[in-house]
Amino acid sequence: MKKTALIMAGGRGERFWPQSRMDTPKQFLSLTGDGRTMIQLTVDRIRSLVDIEDVFIATNESYRRLVKEQLPQLPEENILCEPVGRNTAPCIGLGAEYIARKYGDALMLVLPSDHLIKYTKIFCQSLEDACAVAEQGDNLVTLGITPNSPDTGYGYIKFNPDQMALRAYSVERFVEKPDLETAKGYLASHEYLWNSGMFIWKTSAILKNMQRYLPEMYEGLERIREAVGTPRQQQVLEDEFRSFKSVSIDYGVMEKAKGIYCVAGNFGWDDVGSWLAVGRIRKTNEFGNVVNGNVVTIDTRNSIIQGGEKLIAAVGLRDLVVVDTDDAILICEKDSAGDIKKVLENLRICNKYQYL
Amino acid sequence: MKKTALIMAGGRGERFWPQSRMDTPKQFLSLTGDGRTMIQLTVDRIRSLVDIEDVFIATNESYRRLVKEQLPQLPEENILCEPVGRNTAPCIGLGAEYIARKYGDALMLVLPSDHLIKYTKIFCQSLEDACAVAEQGDNLVTLGITPNSPDTGYGYIKFNPDQMALRAYSVERFVEKPDLETAKGYLASHEYLWNSGMFIWKTSAILKNMQRYLPEMYEGLERIREAVGTPRQQQVLEDEFRSFKSVSIDYGVMEKAKGIYCVAGNFGWDDVGSWLAVGRIRKTNEFGNVVNGNVVTIDTRNSIIQGGEKLIAAVGLRDLVVVDTDDAILICEKDSAGDIKKVLENLRICNKYQYL
Repeated sequence: MKKTALIMAGGRGERFWPQSRMDTPKQFLSLTGDGRTMIQLTVDRIRSLVDIEDVFIATNESYRRLVKEQLPQLPEENILCEPVGRNTAPCIGLGAEYIARKYGDALMLVLPSDHLIKYTKIFCQSLEDACAVAEQGDNLVTLGITPNSPDTGYGYIKFNPDQMALRAYSVERFVEKPDLETAKGYLASHEYLWNSGMFIWKTSAILKNMQRYLPEMYEGLERIREAVGTPRQQQVLEDEFRSFKSVSIDYGVMEKAKGIYCVAGNFGWDDVGSWLAVGRIRKTNEFGNVVNGNVVTIDTRNSIIQGGEKLIAAVGLRDLVVVDTDDAILICEKDSAGDIKKVLENLRICNKYQYL
Repeated sequence: MKKTALIMAGGRGERFWPQSRMDTPKQFLSLTGDGRTMIQLTVDRIRSLVDIEDVFIATNESYRRLVKEQLPQLPEENILCEPVGRNTAPCIGLGAEYIARKYGDALMLVLPSDHLIKYTKIFCQSLEDACAVAEQGDNLVTLGITPNSPDTGYGYIKFNPDQMALRAYSVERFVEKPDLETAKGYLASHEYLWNSGMFIWKTSAILKNMQRYLPEMYEGLERIREAVGTPRQQQVLEDEFRSFKSVSIDYGVMEKAKGIYCVAGNFGWDDVGSWLAVGRIRKTNEFGNVVNGNVVTIDTRNSIIQGGEKLIAAVGLRDLVVVDTDDAILICEKDSAGDIKKVLENLRICNKYQYL
């Protein structure tokens, strides 16, 4: 069966401020140090499974230019711009409609554009395993990540180790971000995986499930499909999208549907959720630092220092993140990385939009 | 007796890098926030005692322009440029020769250009007390600071509380920077003062003492005096200065001479020895921060943040010094402020002289 991909690239990525900005969010940045941006790496990674003509990018009008620049081989009509962000369910539904309209029924890999995966070969094997399961009936397949810590920042998937379909486990339920004690129990039980937000299904299967669990949204999506290619296309897209509720595919479909399977992946996944990820994905030096650019460090440990044009002199620092850009410098204690959003709130309140 | 002042302004002030540079050391910076530089404040402070025509600045050729700019009323011939730095003894000797040549015997206040004093009136009273003692015989008078902590960063003066000359104590001895235990003992004994490096004496008295304790240097200084006003002036100054040993006035004269007195001052002295001083001399906000410029702080305490043109976002910081300048940013843990010199060493090794 034809394999296609829908890559979701509409996020704002505030947690990588000041390098990520409203006009250049995380998926369009290179954080690995090899010059390839997150979205480019996402496309590179699946090139052995999906032709570039069959890759669709869900984003919004503000990022169309960046997508074209960074993925010059992508057919322009494969860039799907959501008029407003309404979380993942409408985004995925729109992608499914476009793909189904072009190819009839097809397999669809739904992938975030801003995650990193260390072992591409294992990842592609997992995707192939997932495709095999998704081809059967209306199965909805998700990639789960074998957890290596009781992380409270992810949702978890409870799988049933005794019910398998090919190389996938049957999913019992999805659980929201747990507290630390619960997460420790999950880790010890070996029956939970992290929810990676990556899905594999047939366009017919996800649309059938949306029709069942999100009927209003489904009808709107159908009206959008009918308008494609007509002069009303853009107007219908905007009207329908604005009327959609903001719903995640997890909440809207996955937590309710039947026939959910999960392939347990072990391919070095990182959702690159904050600057701390840079300490995981980039090589640290003998002092535990990741240092880039014009930087002098004296007695500095376990810090991430991303220099710009200016010289940065770091003296006696511990566990700090320093990011210099043309017009703003972030200096953040690692444990406070979650508070970067407060900086952005503050800037909004003070009308300093030029820094957002 | 005529009162004159010799203000020593040849220092490089590396401890205020990156704001202080080779071409703009600390004495030419404003660190108090009122726009007046350290050397301007030094001159302002003694204006009730010494006419501007009687103020002499000992510096070097590189800083002549800055002295002229910052002290436009100062007669240009009062700028004495040392050809090379040889510590305080030759500097003070040179000043004494110039002043003696112009006025015959005169009182001479020897003052660093880069200290701060909070209470000008009390300071001037202390100077007047010191002048009264210095006018008697060949007394050498120093200003001692009543210590309020067992600071190990200063030299100490042991005075004899039972032997006074007017309002000055007889000095028993000078002691080098002590260890913490010793400093605690000094503080408890009430018989020690901090050595402020400010001196008051007659030109005749200091030159007589230099003749006795630093005879070679004295002879060189006499040859310089004889050459003043002749075509050989500059050549003699350079030749003699290069031949001088590098000797401090404390080691070369004060620790050996007789008739040393000390006025105990309590005028809010701060030698502004590092960025930490900014936390003492500038107003801190409710979070213990001194913040200047385009800065957003989130959960940041007891830090000094001096912004430049860029926005600085400080998140979760404790006890940090951040200084942004046009071409360099310092980020330094407060306790590591002494390590700033290692940054400069590093820059020298890497031939990055543009940042020095």
